[in-house]
Amino acid sequence: MRIAVVPGDGIGQEVVPAALPVLTLLDEAYGLGITHDVLDWGADTWLRTGVGLPEGAIERLTKEYGAVLLGALGDPRIPDMAHGREILLGMRRGLDLYVNHRPVTLPTGVIDIFRENTQGLYVGVGGTVPQGGRTGVAIDECVYTRETVEKFVRYCLGRLRDTGRTKVTLVHKANAVPNTGRLWQEVFRRELEDFPGLEGSEEYVDAFCYHLVRDPSPYQGVLASNLFGDIVSDIGAALMGGLGLAASASICPETGIGLFEPVHGSAPDIAGRGIANPYATVMSLAMLLEHAGHGAPAALLRRCLDEAARGEAATPDLGGKGTTRSFMDAVLALLERG
Amino acid sequence: MRIAVVPGDGIGQEVVPAALPVLTLLDEAYGLGITHDVLDWGADTWLRTGVGLPEGAIERLTKEYGAVLLGALGDPRIPDMAHGREILLGMRRGLDLYVNHRPVTLPTGVIDIFRENTQGLYVGVGGTVPQGGRTGVAIDECVYTRETVEKFVRYCLGRLRDTGRTKVTLVHKANAVPNTGRLWQEVFRRELEDFPGLEGSEEYVDAFCYHLVRDPSPYQGVLASNLFGDIVSDIGAALMGGLGLAASASICPETGIGLFEPVHGSAPDIAGRGIANPYATVMSLAMLLEHAGHGAPAALLRRCLDEAARGEAATPDLGGKGTTRSFMDAVLALLERG
Ligand SMILES: CC(C)[C@H](C(=O)O)[C@@H](O)C(=O)O
Ligand SMILES: CC(C)[C@H](C(=O)O)[C@@H](O)C(=O)O
Repeated sequence: MRIAVVPGDGIGQEVVPAALPVLTLLDEAYGLGITHDVLDWGADTWLRTGVGLPEGAIERLTKEYGAVLLGALGDPRIPDMAHGREILLGMRRGLDLYVNHRPVTLPTGVIDIFRENTQGLYVGVGGTVPQGGRTGVAIDECVYTRETVEKFVRYCLGRLRDTGRTKVTLVHKANAVPNTGRLWQEVFRRELEDFPGLEGSEEYVDAFCYHLVRDPSPYQGVLASNLFGDIVSDIGAALMGGLGLAASASICPETGIGLFEPVHGSAPDIAGRGIANPYATVMSLAMLLEHAGHGAPAALLRRCLDEAARGEAATPDLGGKGTTRSFMDAVLALLERG
Repeated sequence: MRIAVVPGDGIGQEVVPAALPVLTLLDEAYGLGITHDVLDWGADTWLRTGVGLPEGAIERLTKEYGAVLLGALGDPRIPDMAHGREILLGMRRGLDLYVNHRPVTLPTGVIDIFRENTQGLYVGVGGTVPQGGRTGVAIDECVYTRETVEKFVRYCLGRLRDTGRTKVTLVHKANAVPNTGRLWQEVFRRELEDFPGLEGSEEYVDAFCYHLVRDPSPYQGVLASNLFGDIVSDIGAALMGGLGLAASASICPETGIGLFEPVHGSAPDIAGRGIANPYATVMSLAMLLEHAGHGAPAALLRRCLDEAARGEAATPDLGGKGTTRSFMDAVLALLERG
């Protein structure tokens, strides 16, 4: 299997290179047969050539690669993140990565947040109506097809069942956003019938956010549309102790291709100082390995990462006294000891 | 001034009657000249007659009343809250209550969250496309007119300036929901120019929720569209210590009419037991008095309410040992002493 590695911008340029030796080490130790190519997509390329996602990139990724490992996108020179949207939303759509999985690890357990990643308010349908030379009316459409909601819900419920979960919550807003809201409710209820081991519940997004902040412990699996998943998973990251810890996988279950990336941004304020926390990137790499069927090295990597995160070598945001480098040295040393 | 009082459902039937003696007492003590009528809108009426918001209600409210005090809507017999939506969304639209103000009181200060209350994803525009006899595509439109965004932003910035605030944050998602997002950004930036004392900032809704949960202390004023305001203000309530404390005012600055209500729901699980916390309803009454120009009794009420909330007579959710009744007795006793 070949992996496309996109460090991207800011601290992406630090945490991704820091994570790669882990891949090499595990590849050798376990004979995984994984190779990787580093691609220079990001702000510098965009500013130099005007290209975010190169022509033919989707086809190349589909044919030649099994997964993408992405660092972060975002650069102060491009305030509207046009390049980031082209690359990120381009891959989500182009590779049909309709499942975005963001595990939220808390002392009380893990909440698997699944976000639909390709439709909803992100479809880019809408426009503006001019009035006296300016925008008089602005419209953004939230669009969902039954097919997408069905395959998303079915996949997530299967994942939850297969990982031994017993409870799943649909986050929606059918009381105010009725058409898409009811489609989600209808599909959720119908698909749940095929998963007798899963107890389903439904919550309005506002009430869900309230409950999540007050007490996240009752939740196991959460299914949400694109926008609600975006919001809810960031709240999850806050509860986890920060974006520095949050990893994510965007996958297309049919083709198997996946995009693995930390939830955090490019953090221009700390970029270049060698203190960026590589935890979320390495955790994303563990998700990649797991997704590729390499459960044993993924589990080992998680254990070593968590142990190193508790030590002095970890970065300051984790309470350590170290740097990106010392943190990863500690991870590698633990991995070598197995 | 006449007030329409709608206790509504569940604990609304307890907390609103509990709050009314406060109104009578302050009315006499300060000679406010406020009278009120109790209206029976809610689940019982809906189930008996099929009517949520009676015909002509909007006209009557507009002509005869200066404000509405609402308890809560929601009943297990009406799972989709059809009656609640008819009443609540009907008043918001019919009375053009485009400003929803939800103060979030934290140990580090008060955050004034202002939510646009009439447009966005709540416009009810959209529909479904059938496919093989079922919904194949569902569409909900998010629509904003410049006029509404402008008058909303201008009013809120004026309020923030007049109450001595120096910072204001726009919550949006222009990177994924571009048409309405950019309209909000454009209007926000332009209107800010008229308020040199206010320092503006803009945050994506996901990042804002993350920051709010991690550390709410930097925020003073927050402006958000309808859906984002709905979500963000519930997170604010969670940070405050619960929905039991969150009050809200929905107003039309042009006509002056306002709807004042606790943010909490009808809590069927504790309804009828006499232990519902009346804090948020009484605080909503204080907002009503303030809005009607009675700043002194509003301030006195707030002080007495907060003092009683810290005492033994308060309800259990506040750490007290009391009931709705004992809590309000304590508030009234403090008010009588002035
Ligand atoms: C950059 C932005 C368009 C993106 C999103 O909203 O999906 C980001 O917030 C994310 O969660 O990956
Ligand atoms: C009941 C519901 C339609 C309503 C809303 O979303 O506005 C409620 O959540 C609120 O915040 O008042």
